[in-house]
Amino acid sequence: MDRLIDLRSDTVTRPTAAMRAAMAAAEVGDDVYHEDPTINQLETRAAEVFGKEAAIFVPTGSMGNLIAARLHLESGQELICEARSHILDWEMGMVASYAGATTRTVAGERGILNWELIASKIAPKIYYRAQTGLVWLENSHNIAGGTVTPLPVLEEIWAGAKEAGLPVHLDGARVFNAATALGTDVAKITSGFDTVMFCLSKGLGAPVGSMLVGSKKHIERARVFRKALGGGMRQAGVLAAAGLIALEEMPKRLGEDHANARLLAEAIDASAGGSIDIEGVQTNIVMFSCGDAPVLVAGLKAKGILSSAIGPKDVRLVTHFDVSREDCVFAAGVLQEMLS
Amino acid sequence: MDRLIDLRSDTVTRPTAAMRAAMAAAEVGDDVYHEDPTINQLETRAAEVFGKEAAIFVPTGSMGNLIAARLHLESGQELICEARSHILDWEMGMVASYAGATTRTVAGERGILNWELIASKIAPKIYYRAQTGLVWLENSHNIAGGTVTPLPVLEEIWAGAKEAGLPVHLDGARVFNAATALGTDVAKITSGFDTVMFCLSKGLGAPVGSMLVGSKKHIERARVFRKALGGGMRQAGVLAAAGLIALEEMPKRLGEDHANARLLAEAIDASAGGSIDIEGVQTNIVMFSCGDAPVLVAGLKAKGILSSAIGPKDVRLVTHFDVSREDCVFAAGVLQEMLS
Amino acid sequence: MDRLIDLRSDTVTRPTAAMRAAMAAAEVGDDVYHEDPTINQLETRAAEVFGKEAAIFVPTGSMGNLIAARLHLESGQELICEARSHILDWEMGMVASYAGATTRTVAGERGILNWELIASKIAPKIYYRAQTGLVWLENSHNIAGGTVTPLPVLEEIWAGAKEAGLPVHLDGARVFNAATALGTDVAKITSGFDTVMFCLSKGLGAPVGSMLVGSKKHIERARVFRKALGGGMRQAGVLAAAGLIALEEMPKRLGEDHANARLLAEAIDASAGGSIDIEGVQTNIVMFSCGDAPVLVAGLKAKGILSSAIGPKDVRLVTHFDVSREDCVFAAGVLQEMLS
Amino acid sequence: MDRLIDLRSDTVTRPTAAMRAAMAAAEVGDDVYHEDPTINQLETRAAEVFGKEAAIFVPTGSMGNLIAARLHLESGQELICEARSHILDWEMGMVASYAGATTRTVAGERGILNWELIASKIAPKIYYRAQTGLVWLENSHNIAGGTVTPLPVLEEIWAGAKEAGLPVHLDGARVFNAATALGTDVAKITSGFDTVMFCLSKGLGAPVGSMLVGSKKHIERARVFRKALGGGMRQAGVLAAAGLIALEEMPKRLGEDHANARLLAEAIDASAGGSIDIEGVQTNIVMFSCGDAPVLVAGLKAKGILSSAIGPKDVRLVTHFDVSREDCVFAAGVLQEMLS
Repeated sequence: MDRLIDLRSDTVTRPTAAMRAAMAAAEVGDDVYHEDPTINQLETRAAEVFGKEAAIFVPTGSMGNLIAARLHLESGQELICEARSHILDWEMGMVASYAGATTRTVAGERGILNWELIASKIAPKIYYRAQTGLVWLENSHNIAGGTVTPLPVLEEIWAGAKEAGLPVHLDGARVFNAATALGTDVAKITSGFDTVMFCLSKGLGAPVGSMLVGSKKHIERARVFRKALGGGMRQAGVLAAAGLIALEEMPKRLGEDHANARLLAEAIDASAGGSIDIEGVQTNIVMFSCGDAPVLVAGLKAKGILSSAIGPKDVRLVTHFDVSREDCVFAAGVLQEMLS
Repeated sequence: MDRLIDLRSDTVTRPTAAMRAAMAAAEVGDDVYHEDPTINQLETRAAEVFGKEAAIFVPTGSMGNLIAARLHLESGQELICEARSHILDWEMGMVASYAGATTRTVAGERGILNWELIASKIAPKIYYRAQTGLVWLENSHNIAGGTVTPLPVLEEIWAGAKEAGLPVHLDGARVFNAATALGTDVAKITSGFDTVMFCLSKGLGAPVGSMLVGSKKHIERARVFRKALGGGMRQAGVLAAAGLIALEEMPKRLGEDHANARLLAEAIDASAGGSIDIEGVQTNIVMFSCGDAPVLVAGLKAKGILSSAIGPKDVRLVTHFDVSREDCVFAAGVLQEMLS
Repeated sequence: MDRLIDLRSDTVTRPTAAMRAAMAAAEVGDDVYHEDPTINQLETRAAEVFGKEAAIFVPTGSMGNLIAARLHLESGQELICEARSHILDWEMGMVASYAGATTRTVAGERGILNWELIASKIAPKIYYRAQTGLVWLENSHNIAGGTVTPLPVLEEIWAGAKEAGLPVHLDGARVFNAATALGTDVAKITSGFDTVMFCLSKGLGAPVGSMLVGSKKHIERARVFRKALGGGMRQAGVLAAAGLIALEEMPKRLGEDHANARLLAEAIDASAGGSIDIEGVQTNIVMFSCGDAPVLVAGLKAKGILSSAIGPKDVRLVTHFDVSREDCVFAAGVLQEMLS
Repeated sequence: MDRLIDLRSDTVTRPTAAMRAAMAAAEVGDDVYHEDPTINQLETRAAEVFGKEAAIFVPTGSMGNLIAARLHLESGQELICEARSHILDWEMGMVASYAGATTRTVAGERGILNWELIASKIAPKIYYRAQTGLVWLENSHNIAGGTVTPLPVLEEIWAGAKEAGLPVHLDGARVFNAATALGTDVAKITSGFDTVMFCLSKGLGAPVGSMLVGSKKHIERARVFRKALGGGMRQAGVLAAAGLIALEEMPKRLGEDHANARLLAEAIDASAGGSIDIEGVQTNIVMFSCGDAPVLVAGLKAKGILSSAIGPKDVRLVTHFDVSREDCVFAAGVLQEMLS
């Protein structure tokens, strides 16, 4: 065993050789003054790919999401999101701490919301009641296991929110995975969102960086909040150079990660000791239960496979371009063995 | 019909003649300088009644609760509360907007939490995860229909929280109702809380004011936050004079309100057109369903009875000392008629 | 010496017999539901007196000011105020802590700002620079010694701010003192402000309460923030009853307080051991220096006169309706004796 | 003229060839999990260089400063800083907006504070007064023109603050310039600070990144706030690789920038049309006045020299490693010509 097969998260991917070469050669300038040509190129391309007016580069998806929350919400308002959203569980409570807003949750089956569920949580229009200010979706839905919201469900939500006068933001950290699973492109499944955050890291493999896309007006204000949060980096073109490759080249290959995830899921499903909602494995994330999660995780590690215990009996595996088909065949075999 | 029978809320009670006389005669001073003798007396008495070291007078229960949230929580932390808590639904999102904290909810049957439910929501101790900072209870539980958490359940929560190193606050807006229902006194059912807010208005009938009780150290800091929020009133003794009567005299008679609520509940239960969880009617609040809540509320109003539609089919009635037994007998009759 | 002559502040005034009687007899209702007739009457009258569309009752001047800051400012913006403003020094940093805004200060002679000083502090319109959101005045200016901004200076500020697109708020805790000193009425010297906070306590003698006046739209939103901050009291009419007398009857007699302040100031000015800017004594506040402020304050206290040391050598006296001409003649004599 | 001589700021420097090569070859991992070896190496080295227990990499100096403010301050407290501090003017009001704290300013000659000035602004210990929570220095002081606080003045401040129980933070964006000017090393002039932020970009030439150094405990909490603000980047080692070169190699050459600044300053001082405080030119920043700043800036630009108008008559020049001695000789000549 020469190297570890790291299935903990797709955040662990390392930059490709092409990305490294691009970073070394990047033309740069001071991005606070809008003078970094590589950043400018990446922002232009991101807007084009999503069919939006503008885009802005941010150091992390958390910052992109936080800026979106700040853009749409007034302190004291409520944001409606799914009960296991990443924004609620893994973004440090900053919706409250910085945007001053309350996260009002509603549970969806496999993490998938629909308009009826959302509408049931909109605050009545009474002056002594905090008002709803934003609808928040996540597609694919990380903690629910990489599940995907289909286009008709999104369309219904966009229409409902518009009628209710509510903006809609997408936490699209893995929106390219969602588009791949739905066999469509990201512009189509994000057309009705006011803002979309997506990650160049994670599945797309860039070392650092995410983007927020939306209207010119929103992105202009986003620039203010990015500077405020400490995300106004100077010669950020070195990161954008890798990001451009991530954006142009990497989405094409996400199908491989999904096939690898399915391979792992089927191995688990075929094992007596593993319990899995196989229909819920829709992208590159595999969630399953077993007798003792920490024991299994330790056992896998001993065989050179890294995974995450996300509960006493729950384990998560994530495929990405740094684990090959071969790695996954090996891991599937080990899993089947250990779970039988 | 000379006057309305107002069953919308126990917040509508008007001061008694004794309270009015006391207000007119109150000895006062500047309370920001701790020089208002009537306020000082009320604070001393409240601490005694609850068996705590200290107490502070606040203009509203919302301010008392908000100060408690600010006392116990750091910006970015999480507060665990029941899914239909008053703090979440009716206190303007200030836990987020002022204390910077996230409300993490868990649903309890009839609004009653226990330690197991709470423990399941404590954040894992990981640096990139917002940490739990406070456990929040409400007794009686308003939106759940005035339901009461029994002492053994509280004791288990106090013990669990202590072991977990978490403070516990009680939103005791109606804690005297809870004590009355449990046939005990408030000190007993609040002994394990770090801080307790209770209202002099509502069931106790004072025109304005609530109290926060706790350790000397907590109440000293509470004084800072009360001033910050704009609750540092000057000659507040005029209000404290009424509050003292509310505290000393009014708890004794809450049993009457509970009996009146039961009368109403039984009338509804006996009607074909009303659906009620009769076991959930434990204090002075009656929640029930009917065919069309706004229609029923309007019909009741035409008969001189005010009630609240709290959903398309849900109605709430609250008894208090400004509605007599006679009023409730009348209202029960009207309800039975309208629901048949 | 039967009672103390309390010159520490005009916040120490106790309600008159008429106020007490009015409080006892007040017609009340639930003000959160807009049903308290006495509150409604007071709000209507306050709006009339100031020539504004609407008014709202708040428990304290601090809350009124804080609501105004929240109304006009977005988190991250700047408020321009005088360097010794009450909002900066004595309102607990809530402009930052709740409204998220920075106080940008500029010193004015005797605390009096003009448009040129204010304009010099407006932020350049650059996206990576926090923007100015509000101009804040205080008239009379407490810490500067009750000094008064004349109407022409105000008019220039109103015009400048309007052209700059900036709202202007008045901390008018003692605006009736300013109007008295200027020989005009409050409506005239507040006509150009977007919002004005004034106190019913302090010089006007009500036990508790202040008002915020402005446009209907602003006051409607103010109602939201008042509820959020915990200022949504129930049967607040008991306080409004005293407030109405304060508003109608008390402004007429403020000239007496000013004359008393002048009496004290002249006594100090005539003493070898006291140093005073006699031109700066314009209303009911007297600031002066002496050899050792704590020693003088202690000496005065021994003679039954309460005063405030506000620096190692600085003392403040405030006249109000609870200290008579006779009291002040006595105090002036004592001061002259102790300062010689 | 092939290229521009960019004297607007030292933020415009572009990475050296060595930095680019290092970035391309950097060993990386997931820094959120502490697994990026290059980041770990940089953090270890930064702590060593400053003689502190620990260090953390942040995307920008603004984020490093903001984390420090959050570390030391409670919402509602005050931070004492110089009247023209970068934190006040150019960091987006986030001390208020995120940390909830008030910036209390005091003007120092040439931007240099001393303990007496600071002590005069510490809030009295009264419960209804916002309390001082932090002393904030900036060395060198950007807006005051790169001026340097000498070690004895720092030592007096450290001692005073310690006695007053107040932490002290250094905005050391250009602390290596200060150390160079004082002929000492950074550890010596920062030994008494609780936390120090310094920039790898600016004078040290890295494309992106700053560091916060301090005790283990502080840096551990800083990691929490960095994640919260969206600064928890994944394979950040690509940036750290350039940062390591910036930290090890670049401080040595700052003397050249200072000599170049002096050259420019002397040329201005020798010109009839320029007014300069020549003693205030202590590092790599040159501030001066002229008849019409925008006109001069435009004139310089026409000759290939970029500068900043920072007021109607005020211009700023900043030297750095991307402008050579030759460039500065040329610029000095042009300036002398245009200012005569």
